[in-house]
Amino acid sequence: MDLFYILLVLLVVTRAFGELAERLSQPALVGELIAGIALGAAAAGFPSTFPALNGLPDNEVFVTITDLGMFFLMLFAGVEMQPEKVFERSAASLTVAIGGMLVPLGLGAALGWAFLPESPLRLTQCLFIGVALAITAVPATVRILTDLGQLDSPVGQIIVSAAVFDDILSLVLLAWLTGMMGNGEAPGLAEFALLSGKVALFLVLTAAIGIFVFPWGGRVMHNLRIHELEISAMLTGGFAFSLIAEALGLHFIVGAFLAGLYFGRGTIDEETYERIRNTLSAVTFGFLAPIFFASIGFQVEFSVFVAVPWFLSLLLLSAFAGKLLGAGGAARACGFAANESAAIGVGMSPRGAVELVIAGIALEAGLFATDAGGNLIVANLFSAVVMISVLTTVISPMILKWVFARS
Amino acid sequence: MDLFYILLVLLVVTRAFGELAERLSQPALVGELIAGIALGAAAAGFPSTFPALNGLPDNEVFVTITDLGMFFLMLFAGVEMQPEKVFERSAASLTVAIGGMLVPLGLGAALGWAFLPESPLRLTQCLFIGVALAITAVPATVRILTDLGQLDSPVGQIIVSAAVFDDILSLVLLAWLTGMMGNGEAPGLAEFALLSGKVALFLVLTAAIGIFVFPWGGRVMHNLRIHELEISAMLTGGFAFSLIAEALGLHFIVGAFLAGLYFGRGTIDEETYERIRNTLSAVTFGFLAPIFFASIGFQVEFSVFVAVPWFLSLLLLSAFAGKLLGAGGAARACGFAANESAAIGVGMSPRGAVELVIAGIALEAGLFATDAGGNLIVANLFSAVVMISVLTTVISPMILKWVFARS
Repeated sequence: MDLFYILLVLLVVTRAFGELAERLSQPALVGELIAGIALGAAAAGFPSTFPALNGLPDNEVFVTITDLGMFFLMLFAGVEMQPEKVFERSAASLTVAIGGMLVPLGLGAALGWAFLPESPLRLTQCLFIGVALAITAVPATVRILTDLGQLDSPVGQIIVSAAVFDDILSLVLLAWLTGMMGNGEAPGLAEFALLSGKVALFLVLTAAIGIFVFPWGGRVMHNLRIHELEISAMLTGGFAFSLIAEALGLHFIVGAFLAGLYFGRGTIDEETYERIRNTLSAVTFGFLAPIFFASIGFQVEFSVFVAVPWFLSLLLLSAFAGKLLGAGGAARACGFAANESAAIGVGMSPRGAVELVIAGIALEAGLFATDAGGNLIVANLFSAVVMISVLTTVISPMILKWVFARS
Repeated sequence: MDLFYILLVLLVVTRAFGELAERLSQPALVGELIAGIALGAAAAGFPSTFPALNGLPDNEVFVTITDLGMFFLMLFAGVEMQPEKVFERSAASLTVAIGGMLVPLGLGAALGWAFLPESPLRLTQCLFIGVALAITAVPATVRILTDLGQLDSPVGQIIVSAAVFDDILSLVLLAWLTGMMGNGEAPGLAEFALLSGKVALFLVLTAAIGIFVFPWGGRVMHNLRIHELEISAMLTGGFAFSLIAEALGLHFIVGAFLAGLYFGRGTIDEETYERIRNTLSAVTFGFLAPIFFASIGFQVEFSVFVAVPWFLSLLLLSAFAGKLLGAGGAARACGFAANESAAIGVGMSPRGAVELVIAGIALEAGLFATDAGGNLIVANLFSAVVMISVLTTVISPMILKWVFARS
C-alpha cells in the first residue's frame, strides 16, 4: 500500500468535506462519511484513475489504521467521561439499553419474518436483522456528541453508557446466533449462559484492574524516570483491556472504552490528565477518526437502492422508530424530559462501524450463503444492512443537532 | 497480525528496558534497542513460545507502524528545531556533513578493498561499504539528542542538519551505485548529474512550499471551523513532503523533517505550537519511537560475531574513527571547541534505521548475490552492516552522554 499517498488523500478530502459540513451547519462527521462515500464511488467508477484506492477496505494495513482509529476514539470517550457520573446513572443507562435493544430487535425480526422466504436459515436471518437494528455504534455516538459538545452532559452520558451496554448485549446475542447457525436449531440456553458468564467475567476483571491496579500503577509512575510515560501507560491499559475483551468474545472497542474510563481521572493528576486528553483528542479527531469514518462510507453499494427499495425504506424506518420508542421511551420512563428522551432515542440510532463488524461476522459465518432462489431480499441483505449502518450514522447527527438546538 | 498483542508486548518491554537504561545512567534509546535485540533473540530461540513475534520485521502492518514511528520522529525533530538557527549555521553544517561523509567513505572503501575478493562487483561492494559508513541515521540522532536535552543546542543543531545533508548525499551516492550495478562499469557522470538535479529540485520545491504556501495556509486556517485542524495541517504537510521526497528518489524521512522545520514556528501561533509539539512528543516518545527502535534491534544476527570477527571489529572502528576525524575535524576547523567537535563526531556516528534501509536497497539490487566462492566476508557483508547499524546506535549515546557531562 502506498501509505503516505493514501493518508494524504484521505486526510485532505475528509477534512475538506468536514469543513463543508460545518459550514452547512452539520456535524463534521457527516462530511467525513460523505467523503468516504464519494471516494469509494470514485474508486469504483474510475478504477484506473485511482488505483491506490481500489480494494482499500480489504487491505490489511488500511484495516489496521482504521482499527487504531476506533481504538483511539473509544479510549478518548472513556478518558473524557467522568466514571462517577456514568456509574451513578447506571440504572437509567441499563434501562435505556434494554429498552433500546428489545424494541428494535422485535421490529427487525418481525420485518424479516414478513419479507424473507422460507429456508432453514430463516429464523436465524430474522434474528440477525433484529440484532443489526438493536446495536448502537459507540464510536459514532462518541464522535457525534463530541461534535455537538454534549459528550459529558447527562444526556450524553446516558447515550454512551447505554450504547456500551447495548453493544455488549448485541455481541452476546450475535455469538449465540452464529454459534447455533450450523445446526439451524433454536438457540441453546447452555451456550447463552456460557456467553453471559464470559461477559460477567470481563466486567469483573476489568473493574478489578481498573479499581485496584490502575491507581497503584499511577503511584508507581511517579517514581519512574522515562519521558512521556503517561501516554505509554494509558495505551498499555487500553491494549490490555482490548485483548481481554477479544479473548472473552467481545469487540475490542468495549475494552478500550473501559480502560479510558478507569484510567482517566482516578490514576493521574489534573495537569497530566489535560495533557493526555489533548493528545488523544488531537490524534483522534485530527488524524485517525476522519480516516476511520471515511472507511465506513467506502462500504456503500448504491445498487441496493434499486434492488430492494421498499425493504430498505422499512428497515431504515424501523432503525429509527425502534430506538426512539425503545430507548427514548425507557428514558422517558426513567424521568427524562420529552426532548431529552428524544435526543437519547436519536443519539442511540447510529449503527456506524459496529454494524459493519456484526454484518462481517454474519457474512463469514455463512448467514447469507443460502440458495436465495432468486429472492432479491436475501441476495441484498448484507448490502442493505451496510447501507443502514451508513444512513443511520449520517442522518442521526443531523436530527440530533436540531433536537439539541430546540431544547 | 495480532495487533494489540504485539503493540502491548513491545510497548511494555521497550519502556521497561528504557527505564532500566535510565537507572544505569544511559539514554532510554539504548534500553529500547536492547529490548528489541532481546525480543528478537527470544523469538528466534523459542519460535513456538512467541509465535506472534516470528517474522515481524517482514510483516507489512508492522513495517507500517515502524515507518509511522520514523515519520513522527522526523516531524518532531523539524518542529522542535528553530529554522533560522539551522539555516544560520548551514555553512558549518555543510562543512561538517562533507567531512563526515568523505572520510568514512574513504575508510570503508579502503577496508573493502583490503578484505574483499576479486569479482566483477568488487568496486561496487567497496563503495557500498563506504556509503554504509558515510551515512548518519537522523532519527537515531534526534532521539539521542532529545534524551540528552541537546536537540536545540548549537551542537545539536549542527549534528541534525549535517546528518540530514549526509543522508541526502548518501542516498544520491547509493542510487548512483545501484544504478550502475547492472553493467559493473564505473559510475556515469550523466546519471550523477541527473540525481543531483533531482535533489536540487527537491530542496527548491520544498523551500518554495515551506516559505510561501505554509504561511498562507496558516492564515487560511484561522477562518476554518473544524476541530483539531492544526495537527491535520501538520500531518498533511508531512505526508506531502514525504511523497515529494520519495518521488524524487530520496527517503521520506528527509521530507518529514523539512515539513516539520518549515511548519513549526512560522505558520502557527505560540500556543498552537506548544500543543502540536506536546502531541507529537507524546505520540512519538510514548508510543511509536520505542517500537521503531526495538524493530532495529530485531534485525541483529549474532552469528556474524563468530563468522568475521576481525572484519566486523575493523568496520566498527572505522565507523567511529571516520565520523570523529571527518565530522569532528571539520567542526574543529569551523571554530568549534575540542569537546564540542568530539560531541559532533560521536553524535554523527549512529547509523540506526537509515543503514538498514540502505543495506536493504543494496540487498534487493543484488549487491551481495555474487558467488562468494566460500568467502566469508562477502557472505556475511549484509549481516555485518546490519550489526554496525545497531552497535553504533547503542554505543554512540553512551559515549555522547559522557562527552556532554564532561563539558
